Amino acid sequence: MSTNTSSNRAISQDDIDYFARIGINIVYASEQQLEAKYNTDYFGKYHGSSQAVLFPTTTEEVSKILAYCNEHKIGVVTQGGNSGTAGGAIARQSEVILSLRDMNKVRDLDVISGVVVAESGCVLAELDEHVRESGYIVPVDLGAKKRCMIGGNVSTNAGGLRYLRYGTLHGNVLGLEVVLADGRILDALFSLKKDASGYDVKQLFIGAEGTLGVVTAVSIALAPKPRSSQIAVLGLSDFGKIQKAFVLARQSLGEIISAFEFWERRCNELVVQYEKNPSPLASPHEFYVMIETRGSFERHDVEKMDAYLEVLAAEGLVEETKVFRDADEMERTWLFRSQMAEAHAKSGCMHVYDFSLPSRYQHDLLVAVKAHLTDAGLYGVAGAPVRDVTIFGHIGDDNIHLQVVADEYGGVVEEVMEPWVYEWVGGHGGSVAAEHGLGMHKGKFLKYSKSPVVIDTMKSIKQMLDPNGIMNPGKHVERA
Amino acid sequence: MSTNTSSNRAISQDDIDYFARIGINIVYASEQQLEAKYNTDYFGKYHGSSQAVLFPTTTEEVSKILAYCNEHKIGVVTQGGNSGTAGGAIARQSEVILSLRDMNKVRDLDVISGVVVAESGCVLAELDEHVRESGYIVPVDLGAKKRCMIGGNVSTNAGGLRYLRYGTLHGNVLGLEVVLADGRILDALFSLKKDASGYDVKQLFIGAEGTLGVVTAVSIALAPKPRSSQIAVLGLSDFGKIQKAFVLARQSLGEIISAFEFWERRCNELVVQYEKNPSPLASPHEFYVMIETRGSFERHDVEKMDAYLEVLAAEGLVEETKVFRDADEMERTWLFRSQMAEAHAKSGCMHVYDFSLPSRYQHDLLVAVKAHLTDAGLYGVAGAPVRDVTIFGHIGDDNIHLQVVADEYGGVVEEVMEPWVYEWVGGHGGSVAAEHGLGMHKGKFLKYSKSPVVIDTMKSIKQMLDPNGIMNPGKHVERA
Repeated sequence: MSTNTSSNRAISQDDIDYFARIGINIVYASEQQLEAKYNTDYFGKYHGSSQAVLFPTTTEEVSKILAYCNEHKIGVVTQGGNSGTAGGAIARQSEVILSLRDMNKVRDLDVISGVVVAESGCVLAELDEHVRESGYIVPVDLGAKKRCMIGGNVSTNAGGLRYLRYGTLHGNVLGLEVVLADGRILDALFSLKKDASGYDVKQLFIGAEGTLGVVTAVSIALAPKPRSSQIAVLGLSDFGKIQKAFVLARQSLGEIISAFEFWERRCNELVVQYEKNPSPLASPHEFYVMIETRGSFERHDVEKMDAYLEVLAAEGLVEETKVFRDADEMERTWLFRSQMAEAHAKSGCMHVYDFSLPSRYQHDLLVAVKAHLTDAGLYGVAGAPVRDVTIFGHIGDDNIHLQVVADEYGGVVEEVMEPWVYEWVGGHGGSVAAEHGLGMHKGKFLKYSKSPVVIDTMKSIKQMLDPNGIMNPGKHVERA
Repeated sequence: MSTNTSSNRAISQDDIDYFARIGINIVYASEQQLEAKYNTDYFGKYHGSSQAVLFPTTTEEVSKILAYCNEHKIGVVTQGGNSGTAGGAIARQSEVILSLRDMNKVRDLDVISGVVVAESGCVLAELDEHVRESGYIVPVDLGAKKRCMIGGNVSTNAGGLRYLRYGTLHGNVLGLEVVLADGRILDALFSLKKDASGYDVKQLFIGAEGTLGVVTAVSIALAPKPRSSQIAVLGLSDFGKIQKAFVLARQSLGEIISAFEFWERRCNELVVQYEKNPSPLASPHEFYVMIETRGSFERHDVEKMDAYLEVLAAEGLVEETKVFRDADEMERTWLFRSQMAEAHAKSGCMHVYDFSLPSRYQHDLLVAVKAHLTDAGLYGVAGAPVRDVTIFGHIGDDNIHLQVVADEYGGVVEEVMEPWVYEWVGGHGGSVAAEHGLGMHKGKFLKYSKSPVVIDTMKSIKQMLDPNGIMNPGKHVERA
């Protein structure tokens, strides 16, 4: 079982001429501005050397491009909003970049059944705005919503901020249109909620990060737009109290809870410092929790929240509480939360890790990482290369983001962290990638959370759908 | 691309001796009682001629059985509660039956994160009872819950009664343990909610109906047990009013709505007649709707339901309304709904069709079927072989069940109905199987709702995972 990526060749002038001849819009990445835009990821960690970016406008154009690349064994990297944090959309070598930016039509919106069919290049925030006019929301939401595109959300299996309420894309995506590596169009763009007619082939492409084909359009079951929403921000003194507050929230807030986020003191400080955004609470705390509810009847929702906060106070779990019910205030609070990654990136070179980890181990991870870096002389002493080690994340989903901010990318910090941290997470029942994907180099850590038979089956799937190994070569399970 | 099922051979005495030697519990189906139990489906439509039933008790035993059968090209049909309606669990010829009845342990229940890990032979109702003690419910529920087993639910991608609230098994199943056709154990029994580390291989087995491997254990995200529940049954004069009532329900009942079922007059009459269960409403109506809510705060839920029923009355949508809030009354109402299939089966030979179909076409389907059968002289005249043509189903999921009750199974009724009805459904944007699966013979109608590239991809998957074609041979996509 091997996908021989070394047989891929770089794109030539003949290839460019062919694409131009069939009418594909092409950009040469040798121009410096484009270099920065298409060959570098948003956080500036990953750099590729692609020499051309193609901008197809139709599924048929994507089909022609892939048929040609497959025949000529030219590697293809699909790019949406290029907001990923794992380097999955950056060319590893000189693969051609296929940008879906210009495939951004909303093909259909069924306002009765609540299903939208959109092309992959639709920016998530714009698609959400569009369906809101008909009383719906897109069930996935994340910090990068103004840059990321829906095809990329599906291809990385984005979880995001309201997974707790709306669940996974494996459940919400009803259909996909995919161009397979050989150029055939897999028309699985169904809009039916229940379907038990054969294998659910579209599932393979959710989270495949462009290694099995190009997702050109998606059909998604929408959620009703909430009529009422409110946010409470809590200040707490220790991590154990967060878990207690979460269990109580599921009981008291029941079906209206839509997010339960946490971050620690240092994350709060970084957003205040680098994003010039004031803290949502008056005093500093070791931990912060942000709870959102979404419901259909404001008075009921307010009653439930008030009752919940009374329980928290009676149990002595919180140091400070603030409730936001004004739309602008709520937006500012979400902005604060969503600026967390960027604030870290502005403070230094951010090594970001995205784990699924049972919540009982999440704080232990932070303690273990700090101790490990301290033992290696990289943290906690004057002049050490690691400036900050922080965690924040989604308690309800057992999903944690670990940041190690250093003076530079890679080097000794990465050597000391990896594979040590992946082994630690795998050893505590976690997954090496929760919602950011495997991308450029995490495939080699897959063995810490997946068994050999699972990895072999993944490789068989890759071989079956991309025998020439042209789709996002040298990444993902190929590295496992 | 072919899976040569004709190469499968019948089980021999040598094979039986081998299984006995390695300690497998074996039953010979030549005994008449077992014949009725394992070689005939629950509704008596499908009959097999399997000569032996194996009852493994561990995953390792399943592994040894499949390794042997794969080596000797012996066909294997996996059976759970044998409550399917499509013949998927019945041997087509003389395949050996692998009953998972004795693999019925609950391996783990995490009461903090709300995840249960259970073996496939756990009866759905018993598993639900078990997790209820810890404040949770299993998110899938269906009429056959006292017979069906969780492995069969996953393998048929059962949707059921509360899909509207809790969604699909593609979202709720967090992990699977599967024995592959060659005997290898695919340990993908994860309990993490978010996981973006590689292809989600477990998805292939959800709805595969035992054609790719044997699902031996499942990990499922549970839903919190509701603190408050109520049911309203409505009597309506036409189908269009059901759709209006549904749109209003999503607005007024918002996040607490958990089921929105409908049936027509004749279905109501059949349950009253054959199950001796009184109608939930005092007067007869052309259509009935049953709405259930589940919430965390009884007073809020009652207020929402009362407000909704006032809106329905003001809009003139209902002829009669009755609300049930007592636990026994609610259970009796659900019993009435869940006896619908059995009441049809008792009234004659039930040809049951299970379609996903946009709700705007659902009543058209009933009209079209009646007209088609009438044109063929099979319905609506004295002595005609078709006694009843009815529909009931799940409005919120666009899932409809069509029953054609005749004097006998198959024959001219089936010839007139098929493939005509599948073509009609495919032509109206539907799927030929919503939640009952393809089973024994629906594979050949797959072309009416799936494109050739999708079907080819399914066949490639079958070839990849079961190259000898031993898993549930001659069914499902093999017939496409």
